[in-house]
Amino acid sequence: MKLTKEQAQEIKDQQSQASTTKRVNSPELEEILYEALPILDHGFIRVVDYMGNDTSIVQAARVSYGKGTKKVNTDSGLIKYLMRHWHSTPFEMCEIKYHIKLPIFIARQWIRHRTANVNEYSARYSILDKEFYLPKTENLAAQSQSNRQGRGDILEGDQAKKVLDLLKGDAERTYSNYEEMLNERYDGTIIDENKIGLARELARMNLTLNTYTQWYWKTDLLNLMNFLRLRADHHAQYEIRAYADVMLDTLKKWVPTTYEAFMDYRVGGTEVSAKGKSIIQKLIKGDDISMEDSGLSKREWNELMEAFDLKSKLI
Amino acid sequence: MKLTKEQAQEIKDQQSQASTTKRVNSPELEEILYEALPILDHGFIRVVDYMGNDTSIVQAARVSYGKGTKKVNTDSGLIKYLMRHWHSTPFEMCEIKYHIKLPIFIARQWIRHRTANVNEYSARYSILDKEFYLPKTENLAAQSQSNRQGRGDILEGDQAKKVLDLLKGDAERTYSNYEEMLNERYDGTIIDENKIGLARELARMNLTLNTYTQWYWKTDLLNLMNFLRLRADHHAQYEIRAYADVMLDTLKKWVPTTYEAFMDYRVGGTEVSAKGKSIIQKLIKGDDISMEDSGLSKREWNELMEAFDLKSKLI
Amino acid sequence: MKLTKEQAQEIKDQQSQASTTKRVNSPELEEILYEALPILDHGFIRVVDYMGNDTSIVQAARVSYGKGTKKVNTDSGLIKYLMRHWHSTPFEMCEIKYHIKLPIFIARQWIRHRTANVNEYSARYSILDKEFYLPKTENLAAQSQSNRQGRGDILEGDQAKKVLDLLKGDAERTYSNYEEMLNERYDGTIIDENKIGLARELARMNLTLNTYTQWYWKTDLLNLMNFLRLRADHHAQYEIRAYADVMLDTLKKWVPTTYEAFMDYRVGGTEVSAKGKSIIQKLIKGDDISMEDSGLSKREWNELMEAFDLKSKLI
Amino acid sequence: MKLTKEQAQEIKDQQSQASTTKRVNSPELEEILYEALPILDHGFIRVVDYMGNDTSIVQAARVSYGKGTKKVNTDSGLIKYLMRHWHSTPFEMCEIKYHIKLPIFIARQWIRHRTANVNEYSARYSILDKEFYLPKTENLAAQSQSNRQGRGDILEGDQAKKVLDLLKGDAERTYSNYEEMLNERYDGTIIDENKIGLARELARMNLTLNTYTQWYWKTDLLNLMNFLRLRADHHAQYEIRAYADVMLDTLKKWVPTTYEAFMDYRVGGTEVSAKGKSIIQKLIKGDDISMEDSGLSKREWNELMEAFDLKSKLI
Repeated sequence: MKLTKEQAQEIKDQQSQASTTKRVNSPELEEILYEALPILDHGFIRVVDYMGNDTSIVQAARVSYGKGTKKVNTDSGLIKYLMRHWHSTPFEMCEIKYHIKLPIFIARQWIRHRTANVNEYSARYSILDKEFYLPKTENLAAQSQSNRQGRGDILEGDQAKKVLDLLKGDAERTYSNYEEMLNERYDGTIIDENKIGLARELARMNLTLNTYTQWYWKTDLLNLMNFLRLRADHHAQYEIRAYADVMLDTLKKWVPTTYEAFMDYRVGGTEVSAKGKSIIQKLIKGDDISMEDSGLSKREWNELMEAFDLKSKLI
Repeated sequence: MKLTKEQAQEIKDQQSQASTTKRVNSPELEEILYEALPILDHGFIRVVDYMGNDTSIVQAARVSYGKGTKKVNTDSGLIKYLMRHWHSTPFEMCEIKYHIKLPIFIARQWIRHRTANVNEYSARYSILDKEFYLPKTENLAAQSQSNRQGRGDILEGDQAKKVLDLLKGDAERTYSNYEEMLNERYDGTIIDENKIGLARELARMNLTLNTYTQWYWKTDLLNLMNFLRLRADHHAQYEIRAYADVMLDTLKKWVPTTYEAFMDYRVGGTEVSAKGKSIIQKLIKGDDISMEDSGLSKREWNELMEAFDLKSKLI
Repeated sequence: MKLTKEQAQEIKDQQSQASTTKRVNSPELEEILYEALPILDHGFIRVVDYMGNDTSIVQAARVSYGKGTKKVNTDSGLIKYLMRHWHSTPFEMCEIKYHIKLPIFIARQWIRHRTANVNEYSARYSILDKEFYLPKTENLAAQSQSNRQGRGDILEGDQAKKVLDLLKGDAERTYSNYEEMLNERYDGTIIDENKIGLARELARMNLTLNTYTQWYWKTDLLNLMNFLRLRADHHAQYEIRAYADVMLDTLKKWVPTTYEAFMDYRVGGTEVSAKGKSIIQKLIKGDDISMEDSGLSKREWNELMEAFDLKSKLI
Repeated sequence: MKLTKEQAQEIKDQQSQASTTKRVNSPELEEILYEALPILDHGFIRVVDYMGNDTSIVQAARVSYGKGTKKVNTDSGLIKYLMRHWHSTPFEMCEIKYHIKLPIFIARQWIRHRTANVNEYSARYSILDKEFYLPKTENLAAQSQSNRQGRGDILEGDQAKKVLDLLKGDAERTYSNYEEMLNERYDGTIIDENKIGLARELARMNLTLNTYTQWYWKTDLLNLMNFLRLRADHHAQYEIRAYADVMLDTLKKWVPTTYEAFMDYRVGGTEVSAKGKSIIQKLIKGDDISMEDSGLSKREWNELMEAFDLKSKLI
């Protein structure tokens, strides 16, 4: 990741501003506020604002339950209780805003999380930066044979090199033709003073999906956790997981108690169906039960055994 | 409005907490942070947290439009432009959280604004306070004869007194029977040690709709303005308008530039239909045009004339 | 439940209308379309419109996954897969609309599900019906001693009678005073020709929370299931569960395959935390593990044991 | 637009299915149900399902306002009233579902309308079709000099040809390299049996933004109108307007009365600020008022004059 001089200056300015506030704050998050945390080859995530901390959740819950929460006498106990029982609204009382630079094909996955506020850089108004994502060799995976949306083995050296050459060559050529159509370079230089350029809103269609875009993305804590549960999961595409992993760190700095409950109940937890429950019960009793008797499909059986790490039962 | 000793202490504690932050802030809003602003007879509004200020809107817009916003060289000019052209997303970048005490029948109107986060005091868990709304005599209006949802003249002295007696008597009696069913007073005293009380989730159904409830209500600036446009309007019920008016003041302290644009383009503005436009054009040209020729219904004609303060044209 | 003559006629008219459509339909749901299914003493639920059926979910999923779904060769297998893996968007492709009559205190719980469209009867415009909910004696439960939001034992005969008398007396008196203030009976009769009535938007505040209201409520299948998972659960208040149970029946008639997957994976299923998983693994291995060693609180331990029906482990 | 044999057959099958329903229907919309309405060079819109019609809006409104709506004695009058006064919820009672094929850069604009349900073809699972948008020569506009997001003059012949050559060449080359990386052609043929292909989720990043994608898009009538107001407007990019224009036709067939009110109050209407209102009042009185005295900026002044077609006042 390389910041422009202007960006680096803007971050420095933001980090040196200090004011006194009566609002609750989050000291560890303040430490990294505005900082550009690098992701992939040109991407980053910056926390640019936040509202509330762990105590805000507790406070909202105590307003809801009134004297009814007296019994739960620690904040941490209350947050764990809320998480376990899916009491979602107190977690909506905290808000966070990120500035994110990411490849367009990842932005397209990301935007499907609708409960967030977004301001994206507009290629109708302005020229996109000349930056595109090229995977590292170790991330150039083949299509999985067993899983339609997954990755399989890493490509061999020659084939990997070929893929990278194609990606790089096409991104550079299409970008260069984008400038040609605009009659303007990415730095604002006019190419041919005697020509007028194609409208930006049209020229952008020539760019490839690994071109970087950027946006401000603001959401509440509940929806952030919904996002992270799906996107920090091993089923998620590696490239979006790279963002989610860094965001997990910011979550930990922001609301450490909530983070712990989230890791225990959501990320590390599992769901068991009605049929699955009765199988687990039999296994605990020591009953012999096979996939054939279980009423589950082979796939579902294996998912259940994997969830409880019963490798010998996999078929 | 009377605060309990605990509430007064909590506010004092919150107001005396101070920390340093790198976040942007809003000095005028900090002044009144946590303060209980009285509304109606027992209600209040407290701003308990916020995120962002006028510059956050500008910053988000400049990310979106990139170099494209260079021409608009003042922040105030840009905010006015965004407001005028309904560029809504930059206004979503600011967030505010209120603690509100309000009568249940008003809470029922309020909650219809769905794009907000809410934690309400739960009468399943805890006993509601013994407080109910009684209108001032000057607000005891008769049903409007012309407008199905409006108010007409103020009731005469005798009838007004009668209404207040009924409201007060019924609220007190139903609350007292609520305690009776719970076998517990609002202050926690058990009424009859030999009896068990009815479940709270059931007993509450005996309360009248003017009983006060309270909640934390959090929303972004765009949705706050949508709320205020409808609820600070003269068509809104007086009781909810009382809240909206105080919130308008908090809006002004929080984001003064946005407030100004909001008052000009939304609150003070009007909408004109296609047919209405052609009538206004004729009036400007000095053409004589009557309701009959306009294609408008009498009602719509009058609404148009009132919007432009053309009293002589009312029919 | 008693329908007015007008309502009964309207239902008859709606049920006799028939048209030919190219849209997919749901024959079992058509059977009960518009019918008023009675709930509590005066409430009802009517399915008044719907869009899509099980095949709509499959169709949307196949558009998303393209040729990638070829392997899952049955519709039922695909729907189960989607449910198990929380692929939520295909379930959003179906929509249903209910007409519901329910007590106000239940409406207040219900409306917290924000992702739905609602048109409620407005007591600003019109007079509410003279109908209020009175629980059956077997539902008059005491406050639970162990659970702040639950119910305990059923009240004894005398106390139950007393409670019912209070509820009935207060509802009738407050309604009668509501009419008095309005200077109008519920059937439209003016009480005193020489007086004008209080505005409806004010008079309504005198009504108790068990007064019935009604609304049209429209939501998509995904959000309907989210609603039912919470509200058909045994933690939900009995009165809202009564509605959810009837809605579960309509779900079954509408999308039978989805209903089955929903009952298996959501309603009958359970969630296990990371800590819980490792305890279950030990139990399967035959290891002796006690609450003290588990890292769980007593409450959490018991919840886990109950989820897997391990009664002997309860402490 | 060219449909595959399978698509054409699917449409034929869907159009020949007929069932009897008690639901309200919309005869004109039934006529074109499932039909692929061509847009741009390869795109289309198909209405694939709907719920409700004009009468559903009226019915919901009459439930809300109860006897209060008796006075408005025609359905058309009531719908106009609701539209004029922004009574939004009754319009949410109707729902429509489209199947849409569109270029990715347009899909990216479209998806910003968050209040809709979407199932998009997934390039993680399946290979995208070999189809990309190439503008017609008459749509190849230069960047506007006055408006950062607009289009100016049409490009001259030579330059236009050059742009089209670049767009076509780059799209074809990147698509061909996409196949190369996948080791698979768009029709499923394996290119080299001895090689494994790159994961689809990675290879797709090489495609250009004018590649076509497709999705199911479902929304309620209110949000459809919000979409159309913005996207059928002359400020919208031509390519998305092409879709919005066809959707306007489907709106007309679906809910003709609502369509008429929408065109009058929303599409053909305008908004006037507080300052604007006072200027219009002066103009009606025959007062001489200039931009300088108006308190408006030049831009805002011109927008106001244009809204009322006062060309002589433009400066």
